[in-house]
Amino acid sequence: MADILKGKPVVDALNDELKNRSDALTAAGTAPTLAIVRLGERPDDMAYERGALKRAEKTGVAVKQFIFPADMTQDELLEQIDAINKDSSIHGVLMFRPLPKHIDDEIVRNALAPEKDVDGITDISQAGVYAGVAKGFPPCTAEACIEILDYYGYDMTGKNVAVIGRSQVIGKPVAMMLIKKNATVTVCHTRTKNTADICRDKDVIIAAAGHLGTVQNDFLSEGQVVIDVAINFTEDGKMCGDVADFDAASEIVAAITPVPGGVGSVTTSMLMKHVIEAAERAAK
Amino acid sequence: MADILKGKPVVDALNDELKNRSDALTAAGTAPTLAIVRLGERPDDMAYERGALKRAEKTGVAVKQFIFPADMTQDELLEQIDAINKDSSIHGVLMFRPLPKHIDDEIVRNALAPEKDVDGITDISQAGVYAGVAKGFPPCTAEACIEILDYYGYDMTGKNVAVIGRSQVIGKPVAMMLIKKNATVTVCHTRTKNTADICRDKDVIIAAAGHLGTVQNDFLSEGQVVIDVAINFTEDGKMCGDVADFDAASEIVAAITPVPGGVGSVTTSMLMKHVIEAAERAAK
Repeated sequence: MADILKGKPVVDALNDELKNRSDALTAAGTAPTLAIVRLGERPDDMAYERGALKRAEKTGVAVKQFIFPADMTQDELLEQIDAINKDSSIHGVLMFRPLPKHIDDEIVRNALAPEKDVDGITDISQAGVYAGVAKGFPPCTAEACIEILDYYGYDMTGKNVAVIGRSQVIGKPVAMMLIKKNATVTVCHTRTKNTADICRDKDVIIAAAGHLGTVQNDFLSEGQVVIDVAINFTEDGKMCGDVADFDAASEIVAAITPVPGGVGSVTTSMLMKHVIEAAERAAK
Repeated sequence: MADILKGKPVVDALNDELKNRSDALTAAGTAPTLAIVRLGERPDDMAYERGALKRAEKTGVAVKQFIFPADMTQDELLEQIDAINKDSSIHGVLMFRPLPKHIDDEIVRNALAPEKDVDGITDISQAGVYAGVAKGFPPCTAEACIEILDYYGYDMTGKNVAVIGRSQVIGKPVAMMLIKKNATVTVCHTRTKNTADICRDKDVIIAAAGHLGTVQNDFLSEGQVVIDVAINFTEDGKMCGDVADFDAASEIVAAITPVPGGVGSVTTSMLMKHVIEAAERAAK
């Protein structure tokens, strides 16, 4: 029976550490503050926002919400971002995307000051992740995978890892962060011909395909650690990851993250960690 | 006996194509122009520069040389870069690095306008390679590997590729460009435990370790394509790549690039291609 790598102990440990850091900052006159920028009322965005608000409270991070109508013009949005960039009381910005179609994502995301880019959406943050240096911040979900591996004590040096998925938000940044941690990384994707064979002989699988049933039992072998990043829903509305059969998988592998209650639950903690780091840098 | 994937036919084909494009540009009033920025007289830089000058002449690219003393100050260099950025008659810039130690590489390379960054040294160019979108340009040597594979007709879709090396200049950009071409890529490096096993079952090996003798015969198997990017020198001064025994290797694999006369010989063609592309974009 596999160890179930739950997010909760990771989050609890982070809450304590982050609360201490934010209290110290606040006592010294810099209250770490996150701006949330949302256009329209998309239910997914609002659910994530509620989670972020709760996590912010737990970790002593203040939140300023910037809620705009979905038909706001690009120029109006750029003006708001400029004002947020200039506002020294704001240390980090979470901007929900995809943005409405009349807005140029490329222009708007790169309008954000990289030092406030706590969700890793600017080109500069991405260049930092790619180069393995501290510039801006990595995407929160990708970093949550690394945080879980660290918390549970898995040293990645010399480990063979398969990352399933090549998105800019999860697959590629996780691959880059694992390479920096001295893992040997194989990036699989929709055009990979033998994903099952590739995954089966790896020490670690990061499943970030975002497709129900991607990781079948024949992808798995004894001793593996499986980090399931995906959030999929079955036809009857049950939330699950990329692993096709969690119960069967946990009879095969050494350790596995659950969905829900795994990577997803750690993501907003990464966001708060970044806001506090940004505030610490600003306070220096 | 393996096919020897020489650089010369690739270069010859490129010379013709590029000359046509630069002639068309020049006839329309935009003579594609490369600025070469060099501090000091390092023999490696000067050898590469001579090669670039010859390739520029063949492809109809004009060159302006900016040769400065190695003890030039950072501010003086930044002033020169600013002037080059503003000079609309210059379309691309090759700046030799590493820069002298008193100069901050990070600041100077990012001072270059990304649209003139024909050797892929700015963060914006790197973000473009990482995201697989056209921003700035990829590093020339990394792109030369891709150009050779393309020229000799190897479709990378679904192919399993090992990249040996994780540098920002070759390993990582080649990996990113191959992922974009739908290859399944494994990045090996100095901390990889089983590089021979990993390489042996791959369709393609990109050897960019830069260490003499890295790719031993047991890394290789029938049917493979080996692209040897490295330029190493034996004790008696003979230039060779990462492949330990080229003759033995070419008895095993299906195709292999020679060193010298392989990837290295295509690199300056990539530089000229980028200058011409930059000029075409500027002329639009």
